Amino acid sequence: MIDRLAVLGVGLIGGSLARALRAKGLVREVVGCGRDEGNLRRGVELGVIDRYTFDPAVAAAHADVVVVAVTLGATADVLARISPALGPQTIVTDVGSTKQSVVAAARASLGARFPRFVPGHPIAGGERTGVEASNPALYERHRVILTPTPDADPAAVAVVEQMWIATGAHVSRMEPAHHDEVLAATSHLPHMLAFALVDCLAGLSEAGEIFEYAAGGFRDFTRIASSSPDMWRDIALHNRDSLATMCARFEETFGLLRRALDAGDGAALRAMFARAKDVRDAYLARSGR
Amino acid sequence: MIDRLAVLGVGLIGGSLARALRAKGLVREVVGCGRDEGNLRRGVELGVIDRYTFDPAVAAAHADVVVVAVTLGATADVLARISPALGPQTIVTDVGSTKQSVVAAARASLGARFPRFVPGHPIAGGERTGVEASNPALYERHRVILTPTPDADPAAVAVVEQMWIATGAHVSRMEPAHHDEVLAATSHLPHMLAFALVDCLAGLSEAGEIFEYAAGGFRDFTRIASSSPDMWRDIALHNRDSLATMCARFEETFGLLRRALDAGDGAALRAMFARAKDVRDAYLARSGR
Repeated sequence: MIDRLAVLGVGLIGGSLARALRAKGLVREVVGCGRDEGNLRRGVELGVIDRYTFDPAVAAAHADVVVVAVTLGATADVLARISPALGPQTIVTDVGSTKQSVVAAARASLGARFPRFVPGHPIAGGERTGVEASNPALYERHRVILTPTPDADPAAVAVVEQMWIATGAHVSRMEPAHHDEVLAATSHLPHMLAFALVDCLAGLSEAGEIFEYAAGGFRDFTRIASSSPDMWRDIALHNRDSLATMCARFEETFGLLRRALDAGDGAALRAMFARAKDVRDAYLARSGR
Repeated sequence: MIDRLAVLGVGLIGGSLARALRAKGLVREVVGCGRDEGNLRRGVELGVIDRYTFDPAVAAAHADVVVVAVTLGATADVLARISPALGPQTIVTDVGSTKQSVVAAARASLGARFPRFVPGHPIAGGERTGVEASNPALYERHRVILTPTPDADPAAVAVVEQMWIATGAHVSRMEPAHHDEVLAATSHLPHMLAFALVDCLAGLSEAGEIFEYAAGGFRDFTRIASSSPDMWRDIALHNRDSLATMCARFEETFGLLRRALDAGDGAALRAMFARAKDVRDAYLARSGR
């Protein structure tokens, strides 16, 4: 049971967490913090938060658990602002899509409170944003990765872990650097490819016609190119090294495909396509989807 | 009304066309041709075809319309085999995903019958294949592109156009070369990227873990990597020039993204992502999906 939960950033992610915990009766009071008063008021109306403030330090003071759910670009600033207000027992966690940069910011800002910071990343979301889109079932059967450092207080990690388990999520732990590599591969690189593909086609003289003739496969393939440009700029910059490494690996594989195509090497093309199909079909079979 | 329709290749595409025309009462008899007797028998049981043969020339003889719905790799051979059997009024059409290569094969094989060849490409399909997956509604509200050459007999083109309109498809016409460029952009390049991405990740040491942590966006993005390796080898080879050009354009755009990432240029990254999002959102709004 969390007596007072502070949610800094009452959007899809923070709002859904608050709703999930409320639905299980695991939180007594939720204090919201943000910059858009309309959104915060709506959060109160929807019962996601009980009250709100514009000052993260005020929201964090006397909270048992503080969830930093602002954009990656604002996270370091919010951590610095709440640091002086944190009580000795307050646990701080976050939901950012990259972990090394957040850990570095927390280490720099939180000082003696750093052991009670538990970095986290719920792998959930969607194209819809804002508290209006929040949903208590958002995390059910989704993965949440926690990346506590060796400095972390095991009791704080356990509280954050229990909190996410209560939402129905599957929680696992990883090193921050490993998290950033895995996410660069499964999420960040695919987003870069989708953005670059749509950009590339938009620049063609027949762009209008091209989009007109696009079929369902194209729609699925480019769905992630409709994601927030601000969020993805932040993710790309915050995971620059792992993402650059993964981009280079992709260019290498794509180069092999290009060379097979240029050489008219049907056997090599078929082998690549078959390997990809087998791997993807096996992944789908395992995940039961 | 088509008195006798020959469907060479009774799979998802050919089978669905036959079913759609039957459902509208627009065909009296359907003769199927293929190599897999089990599939052909199933086609008769399902009422997709009335009878079958293993010899495309036998199927095509005395047909009013012949639909070549075999793989791209087999199309030239089938056209050569049916050519001597075609009656003077028989119309031949195809469903291949590339059009310049098919037009060249038809020109080489059909001789004096070439004006009654109407190249076509229904933009429909799916991961499921075979007559079992065929569906009379497959083409409803889907695009069909016809690419008749200046030699084409307008009456033959009109028959094929009416046939596709009857299935509920939206039919348009293009030059074969233009078709191949547009499809390279909207379909063939995205497939190459999806295959290369899955291949690239499969080669990483943490591949098992990577697929385990992949979220919904990844699943959508890579769906097309589960397509048939044989079909995509054929498409890549048959549309090699247009596809190579489009791959090179993509590499250029991806290179710009890479350089912005390496330089930590958040403004450039955001601008690219925003442009892609705007274009895709506008495409979705127009297509009403």
